Amino acid sequence: MRKHNFTAGPAALPLPVLEQIKADLPNWNALGASVMEISHRSSDFAKILNQAESNLRELLGVPDDYAVLFLQGGALLQFSVVPMNLACDRSADFIITGAWSQKAFAAAQKINPTMRIAATTESSGFTTLPTAKEIQLNPNAAYLHLCTNETIHGVEIAPEQLAAVPMPVVADMSSHILSRPCEVNKFGVIYAGAQKNIGPSGLTLVIIRRDLLGLAPLNTPNLLDYAQLTENHSMLNTPPTFAIYVANLVFEWLKNLGGVKAIDKINAQKAEKLYRTIDESGGFYINKVEKSCRSRMNVPFLLKDERLNDAFLKESLNADCLGLKGHQSVGGFRASLYNAVSFESVSVLCEFMQDFAKRKA
Amino acid sequence: MRKHNFTAGPAALPLPVLEQIKADLPNWNALGASVMEISHRSSDFAKILNQAESNLRELLGVPDDYAVLFLQGGALLQFSVVPMNLACDRSADFIITGAWSQKAFAAAQKINPTMRIAATTESSGFTTLPTAKEIQLNPNAAYLHLCTNETIHGVEIAPEQLAAVPMPVVADMSSHILSRPCEVNKFGVIYAGAQKNIGPSGLTLVIIRRDLLGLAPLNTPNLLDYAQLTENHSMLNTPPTFAIYVANLVFEWLKNLGGVKAIDKINAQKAEKLYRTIDESGGFYINKVEKSCRSRMNVPFLLKDERLNDAFLKESLNADCLGLKGHQSVGGFRASLYNAVSFESVSVLCEFMQDFAKRKA
Repeated sequence: MRKHNFTAGPAALPLPVLEQIKADLPNWNALGASVMEISHRSSDFAKILNQAESNLRELLGVPDDYAVLFLQGGALLQFSVVPMNLACDRSADFIITGAWSQKAFAAAQKINPTMRIAATTESSGFTTLPTAKEIQLNPNAAYLHLCTNETIHGVEIAPEQLAAVPMPVVADMSSHILSRPCEVNKFGVIYAGAQKNIGPSGLTLVIIRRDLLGLAPLNTPNLLDYAQLTENHSMLNTPPTFAIYVANLVFEWLKNLGGVKAIDKINAQKAEKLYRTIDESGGFYINKVEKSCRSRMNVPFLLKDERLNDAFLKESLNADCLGLKGHQSVGGFRASLYNAVSFESVSVLCEFMQDFAKRKA
Repeated sequence: MRKHNFTAGPAALPLPVLEQIKADLPNWNALGASVMEISHRSSDFAKILNQAESNLRELLGVPDDYAVLFLQGGALLQFSVVPMNLACDRSADFIITGAWSQKAFAAAQKINPTMRIAATTESSGFTTLPTAKEIQLNPNAAYLHLCTNETIHGVEIAPEQLAAVPMPVVADMSSHILSRPCEVNKFGVIYAGAQKNIGPSGLTLVIIRRDLLGLAPLNTPNLLDYAQLTENHSMLNTPPTFAIYVANLVFEWLKNLGGVKAIDKINAQKAEKLYRTIDESGGFYINKVEKSCRSRMNVPFLLKDERLNDAFLKESLNADCLGLKGHQSVGGFRASLYNAVSFESVSVLCEFMQDFAKRKA
């Protein structure tokens, strides 16, 4: 039996996608081999890669003047690759809103120690977003980096909260890409690890405005140079073919569902339901994030009485709810409500939480 | 129906492995989720990673003073990562025996332009290996780099052909790792893309002697620093969990078969049969590699009459033989005889080749 999967990532995948993968084994497309066993240079794989790119372009509305790359290494590698390409000899600005933007800043500093913090919400314990007034931009910054959804701290920058800035905006969207509409043309670079809303871990998506290609120093490894990667259509070496095949199935699933606009509504309902359960628990459950900054994808919460933590975790598993343990750095619990997590799953979780609170309060 | 798959990579996987993957979908280990949907920090995934490491250690006889890493980016990323870690401020020596060692040298030169060629067989068209006399070592080299099996040119350095050298030996073993016994303690670093003898593409194996850890400059990105990766047990960020799970299934399959010694014999028989078919074709098929240097894994061959190329490819597909088209840089044909390719598949190929030659000669 499939359970209700709230893991932060690698995360739930849509059941129809898993069933398609199963049906395609061990003989994909009547080829006499599985999709894992064909050359990345074959026309069969080329079709998958092209479909994945065009499906993604359609889902997110990626303009033609942006390249789409399917890479490896996770968002963490992009933390270094972005400054290697765009800011080896120029400072860039960082907005710090949680653990991931903090890590991105530290990684960029290793590439170029002149990186700047334009704003940080550390003093609020990363429960807020900086106001426009609190952001001190360096007008000469090569780019402004932000993490539009902080998976650990549960803070999300909604598209409408993004103020226009003079420099390219680089965004780590790992944990909320494709969960809501996104105006790609507001960004210089968007990157995302696949293992939340796209597919299995081991695949990283990069969307980059073409005028930002070709800025890497000559001694940049080819595989870390966006221009080389773009020129070679993500095939400078063997890409993670199976992960790209799964991502394409996820894109197809999302299109069939009605695309990003349709999932946006469902995601809003899911988050609304869970936050209401927390807020109406009379303080039994606590989410510390300021309401306007709350993530719709990652909902961290604490029990007021932490002595109940073990019982909560154990009983949540008995209620068929997986993956609720919070990140080690913040403790407590976290429910990740990615695209593949259904409203029904969230309802089961909320019922369990209400029942648990009733019994233990 | 499964066909006979001679693709160079991503390559054939053992059928029992594919059947296990299929059986495990969409509910792995009665967890209520597939293996792609569980946290890399969960105890369930930790078991897979630990098993994969201990199975690999057992199969290859990896000594305790070597770390085993499961990474991303392919061998091509290691072409840069090795010099970033070991030779930023020291020259290293390279033996060039084909396209891949050539690429490794070019990538290393980008990191440090003082890299040296200790020997090259380019003048033979990469159909030979350098003799001991032809190798001019720099005694101060940080390491000696070689590619022990050239996937494109079909040249293999057998373990007994490796002369002892004073510096650490770094070897790209992507296309023949686990195909034959290997004395790991003769090497400083071994690396390999998974997509030939290990599992799906998107996974890279690194085996490194522990005294070579910690030599990277301070500004090396964490994710490219072997010491950081080792300290974090390949989990500095989300690893390619599904690919590691498949690799572990492949390791189990190989152990059940009798391990590397058993597959070594089968691989010798497969290669012997195909090379004999080529050599006894009266010049209809041509493999240019000197006999003592021929790869057991990748057998490139040409038709004497290249006008028959299209017919050969078409008819090979009709004979259920996949993936025989040669690499674009050398043309002709190539049969890759990795571990998962059975002796029976090679027999089918040889019969087809003999029949084709008889009809067309």
